[in-house]
Amino acid sequence: MRVFNFSAGPAMLPQEVLEQAASEMLDYHGTGESVMEMSHRSPEFKAIIEQTEQDFRDLLDVPDNYRVLFMQGGGTQQFACVPLNLMKNHVADYILTGNWSKKAAAEAEKYGKVNIIASSADRNFTYIPDCSDLPVDDDADYVYICENNTIYGTKYHTLPDTKGKPLVADVSSCFMSEKHDVRKYGVLWGGVQKNVGPAGLAIVTIRSDLIREDLDPKVPTIMNYHTTAEKNSLYNTPPCYTIYMCGLVFQWLKRMGGLDEMHRRNEAKAKLLYDYLDQSRIFHPTAEKDSRSLMNVTFVTDSKEMDAKFVKEAADEGMINLKGHRSVGGVRASIYNAMPEEGVRKLVEFMDRFEKANR
Amino acid sequence: MRVFNFSAGPAMLPQEVLEQAASEMLDYHGTGESVMEMSHRSPEFKAIIEQTEQDFRDLLDVPDNYRVLFMQGGGTQQFACVPLNLMKNHVADYILTGNWSKKAAAEAEKYGKVNIIASSADRNFTYIPDCSDLPVDDDADYVYICENNTIYGTKYHTLPDTKGKPLVADVSSCFMSEKHDVRKYGVLWGGVQKNVGPAGLAIVTIRSDLIREDLDPKVPTIMNYHTTAEKNSLYNTPPCYTIYMCGLVFQWLKRMGGLDEMHRRNEAKAKLLYDYLDQSRIFHPTAEKDSRSLMNVTFVTDSKEMDAKFVKEAADEGMINLKGHRSVGGVRASIYNAMPEEGVRKLVEFMDRFEKANR
Repeated sequence: MRVFNFSAGPAMLPQEVLEQAASEMLDYHGTGESVMEMSHRSPEFKAIIEQTEQDFRDLLDVPDNYRVLFMQGGGTQQFACVPLNLMKNHVADYILTGNWSKKAAAEAEKYGKVNIIASSADRNFTYIPDCSDLPVDDDADYVYICENNTIYGTKYHTLPDTKGKPLVADVSSCFMSEKHDVRKYGVLWGGVQKNVGPAGLAIVTIRSDLIREDLDPKVPTIMNYHTTAEKNSLYNTPPCYTIYMCGLVFQWLKRMGGLDEMHRRNEAKAKLLYDYLDQSRIFHPTAEKDSRSLMNVTFVTDSKEMDAKFVKEAADEGMINLKGHRSVGGVRASIYNAMPEEGVRKLVEFMDRFEKANR
Repeated sequence: MRVFNFSAGPAMLPQEVLEQAASEMLDYHGTGESVMEMSHRSPEFKAIIEQTEQDFRDLLDVPDNYRVLFMQGGGTQQFACVPLNLMKNHVADYILTGNWSKKAAAEAEKYGKVNIIASSADRNFTYIPDCSDLPVDDDADYVYICENNTIYGTKYHTLPDTKGKPLVADVSSCFMSEKHDVRKYGVLWGGVQKNVGPAGLAIVTIRSDLIREDLDPKVPTIMNYHTTAEKNSLYNTPPCYTIYMCGLVFQWLKRMGGLDEMHRRNEAKAKLLYDYLDQSRIFHPTAEKDSRSLMNVTFVTDSKEMDAKFVKEAADEGMINLKGHRSVGGVRASIYNAMPEEGVRKLVEFMDRFEKANR
């Protein structure tokens, strides 16, 4: 029996995508090979990576003056790639809204001056700060945000006014949960392991004029956006199977009606959960109302013991990975694209039963 | 129908491993999840990564004073990781035996002085140079080799005398084709996409005393061996599914009788092909006899047209990816662990028929 998996990432994938992958495992489209076994220089794989990029572009309406790069290493790699590729003046502005923006800023400090121009650390990252009039540094090469904060359950509902500087956003935990307006970003990158595919890939969408040839020669080749772009993400062997899996998810997203439709569904799922939380007497949502994430819904009970009891009993009913991140505790329900509304309804029903039994 | 896939990498995987992966795709061991969907912090995935490391250690008899690191990025990443982590004096000695050692040396030059202490460039990398008395630099932090040269079909049959310096070897294309004597290496690393699993992972086996804490702070965190070791390869989200696939291959290797038995089989397969080549009048092996690879068998006919005809007709008979690397041309049969003897026999039979029809 399949469970409802509320993991923050790696996370649930659409069942029909997994079924398709299983059915093609030994023989992809009559080639007699698994996609895992294909040479990355073969016409078959070339067709896969090109179709995957095209479907991604279609879904997000990526403008022609943006490149789409498939890179290994996930977030930790991009935390270094961003300053190594974009810092020209060696100054960048970061907004802190949780662990991942903090880690990104710390990595960037290795390579230049980092200004923290806004932060929600004062109230334990439970909100997104006002970014309408930021002290953007004249020399800043970019302004960096983590758009959805997996751990704290918050999301930017309005993008910062960067005063003309390129906006760089880590969208890992809201990646393709809605139709990001790519034109508003200089770089929009996401690790795929939350909402798009299996772990081991980041997709970097970057405005072409930000791709520089004149990098410090000490930048490792694998982190060089220009080399990656020039070779269409095939400078070295890419994680072929992971790219294929993302491609299957993109095709599924198209069949589901595209990203506006996914956004509608995600709003409906999140509303079910937040509406329940807002009237509950034992569960308390932790993110401030106007900063709530549609993807990661965080809440606590009045005690750690009750949190743990809830997480355990939910798991016994086939709803797993509801424990909050080790750095904050409590409960977290991650309800990405692949989580059906049925899973959220089942969770809310269980919360209601749990509340009646435990209040 | 499954084909015999002679690709140099990504390459053939054992059919029963693919069957197992397909059967577990929607529900791994009754968890109700795919391994792709598992949190990398879950007990289920922890058990997978720990078992994978243990099986790897068992197969290679890895001594206790070596760490095994699972890292993303493959060879291109390791070309930078090696100098960034091991250069203390900022001097290293490289031996050039083909494209991959050249690329590794070029990347290392970004970070220090690189001495080329031996090379087989003079005869187009068709042999392994004598490494019994090398001009090893007193200040060299390590001596670097690419042990099996996928493109040129050569392999070191005797490891270099490094005069006490740590030997660093890229074993990607002979990884686990035999029982490497780990004690002879400071670092033995391989990208898994040739002989071990799907693309997107490198396994680094490193003597613990070579893991340094005092790295240049500019080393990207994702490239830091110390951080990776300290966090047991879970500092960030690893490519979980790729690790799981490698684990299935390791279990298959154990069932097959381990690496000494694989070595015996690989020698038998290579002998079939080389014996045929040595008596053929139209096919000419390109690597010198005492430097031949067991994994990548390279040969040419008397013309590019005949090479292409051979590759095409073999593909029509279900033997694919026999074309030589784009940088050298000709024909290359990669016969990794997963290639059954039946595939090599079928290839030799076809070569014999082709020779009779075309000489």
